[in-house]
Amino acid sequence: MAGNSFGQAFKITTFGESHGKGIGAIIDGCPSGIPISEGDFVKEMARRRPGRNSIDTPRSETDSVEILSGVFEGLTTGTPIALFIHNQDVRSEPYEILRELFRPGHADYTYFKKYGHFDFRGGGRSSARETAARVAAGVVAQKVLEPLEMRITAYTLEMGGVRAEDIDLDVINTNPFYCPDKAAAHKMREVISKAKGEGDSVGGIVEVRVKGCPPGLGEPVFDKLSADLAKAVMSVGAVKGIEIGAGFKAARFKGSENNDPITTEGFKTNNSGGILGGISNGDEILLRAAVKPIPSIMIEQETIDRKGRPARLKLEGRFDTSAVPRIVPVLEAMMAIVLADHYLRARHGSVEQLSG
Amino acid sequence: MAGNSFGQAFKITTFGESHGKGIGAIIDGCPSGIPISEGDFVKEMARRRPGRNSIDTPRSETDSVEILSGVFEGLTTGTPIALFIHNQDVRSEPYEILRELFRPGHADYTYFKKYGHFDFRGGGRSSARETAARVAAGVVAQKVLEPLEMRITAYTLEMGGVRAEDIDLDVINTNPFYCPDKAAAHKMREVISKAKGEGDSVGGIVEVRVKGCPPGLGEPVFDKLSADLAKAVMSVGAVKGIEIGAGFKAARFKGSENNDPITTEGFKTNNSGGILGGISNGDEILLRAAVKPIPSIMIEQETIDRKGRPARLKLEGRFDTSAVPRIVPVLEAMMAIVLADHYLRARHGSVEQLSG
Amino acid sequence: MAGNSFGQAFKITTFGESHGKGIGAIIDGCPSGIPISEGDFVKEMARRRPGRNSIDTPRSETDSVEILSGVFEGLTTGTPIALFIHNQDVRSEPYEILRELFRPGHADYTYFKKYGHFDFRGGGRSSARETAARVAAGVVAQKVLEPLEMRITAYTLEMGGVRAEDIDLDVINTNPFYCPDKAAAHKMREVISKAKGEGDSVGGIVEVRVKGCPPGLGEPVFDKLSADLAKAVMSVGAVKGIEIGAGFKAARFKGSENNDPITTEGFKTNNSGGILGGISNGDEILLRAAVKPIPSIMIEQETIDRKGRPARLKLEGRFDTSAVPRIVPVLEAMMAIVLADHYLRARHGSVEQLSG
Amino acid sequence: MAGNSFGQAFKITTFGESHGKGIGAIIDGCPSGIPISEGDFVKEMARRRPGRNSIDTPRSETDSVEILSGVFEGLTTGTPIALFIHNQDVRSEPYEILRELFRPGHADYTYFKKYGHFDFRGGGRSSARETAARVAAGVVAQKVLEPLEMRITAYTLEMGGVRAEDIDLDVINTNPFYCPDKAAAHKMREVISKAKGEGDSVGGIVEVRVKGCPPGLGEPVFDKLSADLAKAVMSVGAVKGIEIGAGFKAARFKGSENNDPITTEGFKTNNSGGILGGISNGDEILLRAAVKPIPSIMIEQETIDRKGRPARLKLEGRFDTSAVPRIVPVLEAMMAIVLADHYLRARHGSVEQLSG
Repeated sequence: MAGNSFGQAFKITTFGESHGKGIGAIIDGCPSGIPISEGDFVKEMARRRPGRNSIDTPRSETDSVEILSGVFEGLTTGTPIALFIHNQDVRSEPYEILRELFRPGHADYTYFKKYGHFDFRGGGRSSARETAARVAAGVVAQKVLEPLEMRITAYTLEMGGVRAEDIDLDVINTNPFYCPDKAAAHKMREVISKAKGEGDSVGGIVEVRVKGCPPGLGEPVFDKLSADLAKAVMSVGAVKGIEIGAGFKAARFKGSENNDPITTEGFKTNNSGGILGGISNGDEILLRAAVKPIPSIMIEQETIDRKGRPARLKLEGRFDTSAVPRIVPVLEAMMAIVLADHYLRARHGSVEQLSG
Repeated sequence: MAGNSFGQAFKITTFGESHGKGIGAIIDGCPSGIPISEGDFVKEMARRRPGRNSIDTPRSETDSVEILSGVFEGLTTGTPIALFIHNQDVRSEPYEILRELFRPGHADYTYFKKYGHFDFRGGGRSSARETAARVAAGVVAQKVLEPLEMRITAYTLEMGGVRAEDIDLDVINTNPFYCPDKAAAHKMREVISKAKGEGDSVGGIVEVRVKGCPPGLGEPVFDKLSADLAKAVMSVGAVKGIEIGAGFKAARFKGSENNDPITTEGFKTNNSGGILGGISNGDEILLRAAVKPIPSIMIEQETIDRKGRPARLKLEGRFDTSAVPRIVPVLEAMMAIVLADHYLRARHGSVEQLSG
Repeated sequence: MAGNSFGQAFKITTFGESHGKGIGAIIDGCPSGIPISEGDFVKEMARRRPGRNSIDTPRSETDSVEILSGVFEGLTTGTPIALFIHNQDVRSEPYEILRELFRPGHADYTYFKKYGHFDFRGGGRSSARETAARVAAGVVAQKVLEPLEMRITAYTLEMGGVRAEDIDLDVINTNPFYCPDKAAAHKMREVISKAKGEGDSVGGIVEVRVKGCPPGLGEPVFDKLSADLAKAVMSVGAVKGIEIGAGFKAARFKGSENNDPITTEGFKTNNSGGILGGISNGDEILLRAAVKPIPSIMIEQETIDRKGRPARLKLEGRFDTSAVPRIVPVLEAMMAIVLADHYLRARHGSVEQLSG
Repeated sequence: MAGNSFGQAFKITTFGESHGKGIGAIIDGCPSGIPISEGDFVKEMARRRPGRNSIDTPRSETDSVEILSGVFEGLTTGTPIALFIHNQDVRSEPYEILRELFRPGHADYTYFKKYGHFDFRGGGRSSARETAARVAAGVVAQKVLEPLEMRITAYTLEMGGVRAEDIDLDVINTNPFYCPDKAAAHKMREVISKAKGEGDSVGGIVEVRVKGCPPGLGEPVFDKLSADLAKAVMSVGAVKGIEIGAGFKAARFKGSENNDPITTEGFKTNNSGGILGGISNGDEILLRAAVKPIPSIMIEQETIDRKGRPARLKLEGRFDTSAVPRIVPVLEAMMAIVLADHYLRARHGSVEQLSG
């Protein structure tokens, strides 16, 4: 009921706050016998970590993942895998002002209205830090998917109005923006630098592609693969829009343009984004998420205090200029989590499987 | 696991196929003591019904809702409300060709891959007819929400490339497209008429607004109100994109432009679409859904048969030219269902409520 | 939340009241490709049906099951199977007295306290009639289990103080009490006849045995097979106790007596009832349920009315003298439902299965 | 799916193994604003702890509970409460023999069959140590229930064949067996001492009483309060039977004996155990659980190894002689967890509540 779990066959529950003891995830439903170690998390956690480059908040965290349960002698046991990431470098003094004032664009106001009482330090539970637990869980999901040889790749399609034109997946990890276009990455650096100088922030678009997803994942009606992906992606704080395949462009297409002809070699086009009737069709899954600019800016803003009185707020501190690059590994993780869940769910779908 | 249920506190499960005995919904979690009768469903079922006007399929169904359980002497009892809508006028002969051929843009191919065996008549379970059960459940959801005096309104923002410029909610029900702009509605008729003549179909955008939603609905992290709305809307077959508030525009905003300043009179702007940190903030909820053109077109298309051999398919029959108008009441229903669910879920959120 | 669903991978939701239009079940999660027809339900529905013999209520219902969805051309499609049983012969006038008075031992008082408003005719939702929907769902569960060649058998171990001493499963269906001991069945008839003459009712014990359950069904900790069986059985209205294997006798055993030695031919004894650590061990599953006497008796009883005033109640009508025989097929159904659910859940438990 | 969560509105998920880093529980759904601190757990954890007296295993653990999240400035925030208990004093060498041999009466055999690979040290996930996480979660559940002023009391009704005859709740905490009868406690000590000398173990019965439960808790049909209690109690490893109210005695009663007459002062008798039709009736809730003798005994036993070869096993180590006393606080915890869950669930049951 309280909304901190996701998935059914591969179910994750996350907990923790930005400035508490740490954050974590429990994974219930990971099959037994999968090799996993704390070292497996290092690379993905580093990709998500702030302080990676000049545009990020200088908060430096190693974000090492501790496995508290569910793994024995290097293999998963089929019982819950508990992952924990200690918070470090958590100076909470800068947040004392938030005891009284609501930050525009943040969840302070709504948490106050909902709970009366909340951990306001760095956003507490509503902080982007919560996504570290998702990235950790995503590493386990990737392990579950390994037999399928899928390849999930996210990247910054657009940031601060600069759009990647040439999509070269090999370029993604060569720049701090996870941009697949070198020239665009160069311009993004300028845009970011300018916004940073102004104390402002910028938004963008993350695109995700999944190669190698077999047909048949997704359930009819409510738990369509597309619907669960939409929920997973929209549950990431900064995301305000999502489209699959042709997305909003499909709204202007005619049926004769939008339908993907089926040939003996597969689908001729991919306006569907690899999902038909909510079920994967074997083609590449293609999804885009609109990411709003980070609401924490160092420009004075109009707000009110807890008693409803007008106030002015000028944040001082260490803030990212854009959430977009950090959301790239988070969306890869959420994608893996949804696909692992539907992969395990699909395993009881037909009578052939039953007797298999 | 199999994906035919939605919601937690107000949980609906739908069943039925396009050309079977009928379709229905079970609602588990509706509080007791709410007045409800079969007459309450007539208006909404009529709004969704095909055959309303010249652009729709001539299949004429009265779509009357039968209450099978959960209501006694005119009041809900707190036990499951079962709603059933008999299928009528279901000629299935035209679908015999689908026993062999996959319709491009439809779920035939993916259902075949997933299940081996499926009811292909009119799409069976994947048919848009399934949404009639959602509309019926939405009527009950609206009853649950009545004490809050919310007003949920959806309309056709765009269809076939024609966009409503002036949004006048009073205009919506004066034209068969549920378009809030008279001039745009006029142009839509022309566009539809032209596409119909060509045997083609068109897509569009539906916009939904909710006035009067109290702050505090939505749960942190995964079951954000925005995430559940995204899932609910994306679970409607033809929807390929969704955005909340500024949506994809937010990707090009700076933080200083996108943040909604908070004043003593409320939020100065509404780029958030009424949802902050996944929780309603008391402002108007604003959401847009991209609807693809209906894949059933009377133009010859390339496809394959069940054995993988190339084929040509030219559908003959009675098809809508656009799904957009029929999706308008469906999205209102899904919105009501999500809000009723979160309203009931929010009722155990704080200690004050506990002792209240 | 509202408690009308059971199971996760094989999930059933029931609806309907004793004297409403009918009762039904939706099964979400039944794999596709399983042959099923309305005729498959006849035998089990007849076993549960009242009016079978002189000890039962004369209410005669054919209880034929209508398949509303989920089956196409004789095979399940993987989409929800909706089953409906029309109520017939539902004279509700005799129940007018219950508009004011609470029947001792029934749910009238608690439903009134919980809901304020309820369908009191024949118990409404709390009626034993609800179990007809379980028996129907159990038929589908048995189909799912078919590849495993399990044999689920329930019988009356004790009724009205008469206990079956010789357990001969072939005797069960030769008498209306489903008693596996001919001599005991004979005595049961006498006891029942006497109680009936007094306007009274009797309780008893139902025993269930499952042969052929493979090891590995059940999940650790909360969803132990034993725990889910306990819930399933205790959710049947009249059941007040349950024990597995040695059950309450185990409380007086020493460890050296209770432990089942493991040999190369299997377990030497079966005090565990086929379940160790909540997971089936391949031995026979053995379970007993205590069934209370039917509360509807034709003897005057002390009670109160809705306003809390003292009253006397003497029911007149058609009542069973014991629920025990009718609960026999219900417990077989619940057993099949739990096992089908855990069978489908177990299918994603290990890496070997993943790559299989 | 994997069975490590329990509850819906107050949902707990446990994790951890006997000889891993520790064990823990995540509580999702605890309302905000409830005062809680790590000190609140000390008393209950101490009651459950082994090594309390001469009959228990000498493993000494402080079992202090660390709150990892969900509490801020001493109050719950409404977000997940993560509780963690570090394992200490975990010598795993004694368990090396279990790498090959299955202990009779334990879950070794079934875990091996289910998972292929499992943490066998001290039973791993199937260890009674897992119940420490339940006791910790139960402390939070009790806090949720505080406004209702319920009193949940469990005690040893019977152990090693010795039964408490006089039930004096004030006596419970004066002896290490939590026995409410001084004379019986004295005899229990003798029985335990004798069994210990023989390297054997004994079982018993725990009884639980709840005073002050309001009417209306529990949902119809599957999630009856009685059904959820049965599941909760049977999910505790050593429990093999459960009865509510008159329980198995009701099987021998007549209706006229078993029905509890209703008077203006309440129910005249309590054969129902405080639950009618699955819903609490306001009377005392009464439940008994049969606890099997601990399977770990220091007497040689017949078993097989992982390759199926016959073997003899004689455990050496530190084992409890009876699980009964340690299960007393565990059942209190499970009772509190079920009641807190149903209390929160009941909060959306009627229209009066909706507008309240």
